Amino acid sequence: MIFEVTILGSSSATPTAFRHPTSQVLNINEKLFMIDCGEGTQIQLIRYKIKYQRINHIFISHMHGDHYFGLVGFLSTMHLQGRNTPLNIYGPPELEQILQLQLNNNGNHLNYQIIFHALEQTESKVIFEDKELQIETIVLSHRIPCTGFLFREKERPRKLIRDKVIEYDLPISAFHDLKDGKDYIDENGKVYKNEDFTTPSRAPRSYAYCSDTIYNEAILPQINNVDLLYHESTFMNDSILRAQETFHTTSLQAGIIAAKAKAQKLIIGHFSARYRDLQPVLLEARSQFENTSLAIEGEKFRIE
Amino acid sequence: MIFEVTILGSSSATPTAFRHPTSQVLNINEKLFMIDCGEGTQIQLIRYKIKYQRINHIFISHMHGDHYFGLVGFLSTMHLQGRNTPLNIYGPPELEQILQLQLNNNGNHLNYQIIFHALEQTESKVIFEDKELQIETIVLSHRIPCTGFLFREKERPRKLIRDKVIEYDLPISAFHDLKDGKDYIDENGKVYKNEDFTTPSRAPRSYAYCSDTIYNEAILPQINNVDLLYHESTFMNDSILRAQETFHTTSLQAGIIAAKAKAQKLIIGHFSARYRDLQPVLLEARSQFENTSLAIEGEKFRIE
Repeated sequence: MIFEVTILGSSSATPTAFRHPTSQVLNINEKLFMIDCGEGTQIQLIRYKIKYQRINHIFISHMHGDHYFGLVGFLSTMHLQGRNTPLNIYGPPELEQILQLQLNNNGNHLNYQIIFHALEQTESKVIFEDKELQIETIVLSHRIPCTGFLFREKERPRKLIRDKVIEYDLPISAFHDLKDGKDYIDENGKVYKNEDFTTPSRAPRSYAYCSDTIYNEAILPQINNVDLLYHESTFMNDSILRAQETFHTTSLQAGIIAAKAKAQKLIIGHFSARYRDLQPVLLEARSQFENTSLAIEGEKFRIE
Repeated sequence: MIFEVTILGSSSATPTAFRHPTSQVLNINEKLFMIDCGEGTQIQLIRYKIKYQRINHIFISHMHGDHYFGLVGFLSTMHLQGRNTPLNIYGPPELEQILQLQLNNNGNHLNYQIIFHALEQTESKVIFEDKELQIETIVLSHRIPCTGFLFREKERPRKLIRDKVIEYDLPISAFHDLKDGKDYIDENGKVYKNEDFTTPSRAPRSYAYCSDTIYNEAILPQINNVDLLYHESTFMNDSILRAQETFHTTSLQAGIIAAKAKAQKLIIGHFSARYRDLQPVLLEARSQFENTSLAIEGEKFRIE
């Protein structure tokens, strides 16, 4: 039951020779979700051997090019490589026309369907739900409308203690209530206490993606106790004025957000091209939140 | 007086872990011209240390994404890096709207001017001219309208033999005719033979870029005697049916075109992702035209 983020790019607006613009792939129980798709993402997918045809959902945070200029090339490559299963894209409303215009002008017709979900950008919404997982938007505060994404596993049913169920010869009709956390009461009114017949299943895991945004405590209630938090950290704190002016966060501030959210772990990324050496950026965030890592391309972060 | 092509990418439609989609930069006497701009080109420019703000003219051959998906990102980066000099883009008419739509949706306004030149795609035209250089389109034959580009230095004036001019005390008014290749005749009717007073300047150099196209001898008169020919070579000749079907050329055919055009040198590129090892591709072209090289990323080809 894997829950793992792979970093494909972590540069801010301008790429460098060593850092690509933003993209990540999240693997939740072998379902792959892509978050943002900066230029060059399709090459990164090949480089890191990600089975990209298994991606069925792509989430685009906002209309700054370093978060989506790689998307149309990736869509084309999936077509050329024979994709025929539908693909869901969640992004700002303007994105749909931009993609269609480019895809319509190349003389080909995609042999798979794109299902476009225009995101509401002013309040948080659940945008995806299946029996295991829920995905909701996080309203971020950037120069243009921008949404983060919160991936949260659903509460799993409690596990039956097989030997006890057999020993007491409980009927199958009892299982539903027990898995749901309730006691079972038989037709004679006898009570079978839930904790004697079940054990808790593992806790649901969660991942919050927050890029791009100015320091904004309004997101804290939503990401409270998140297992893994990706937060942008474009600048260091000696450039806090520049960060405020451009609606970005400093690494110190990213550490503060992680601490206040009581996150288990923080990944920082979206680094300005000015930081060739990222060690000082990391240390600054760690001064506020010890369990911080850098979003280095090719790194995988797993929630166990 | 440099005349040099740098290869930035040479993959066909689908990139590989080792090859980017098409782009080249041509340096003619320190003026930089970009030809095509596939995804990732801006990162390649950084990698190969090309002073990209010195590019003032970009030529896009056609609307297949592997030839232009990197353009909008490159335009954005030039803006973010402080460009303020105008930029000329020559390409299919549809390209303009696609660029504008993306540039208008990011909340910024470019701080430099884009001058868009919509290319006529059915007949060859001179699209650029200054005192040293002329650039004309080559009508290629592909699945959608596609133009190649022929860069040709202008004939340079003959060089005066300084000592002879002084010895005979020729007036400045004589220089123009002599440089132009004419004899000078003074007011008394005395003839000063051109070859006694001038030497030829170096021959004008030329570069033809032909991608993407099916094998097409109609281009031969235009590229006759070209110094350097880049010709696409998507497949090897055992896939000639696939090449015809997709309006591409085989490496054998690219060699034949170079031989028939009496080119000095051939560069082949736009390789299908199926060819991991390009040595057989090269040998096949060389069977027809010995002086052939592969368009390997980062390679520079100079006409001396």
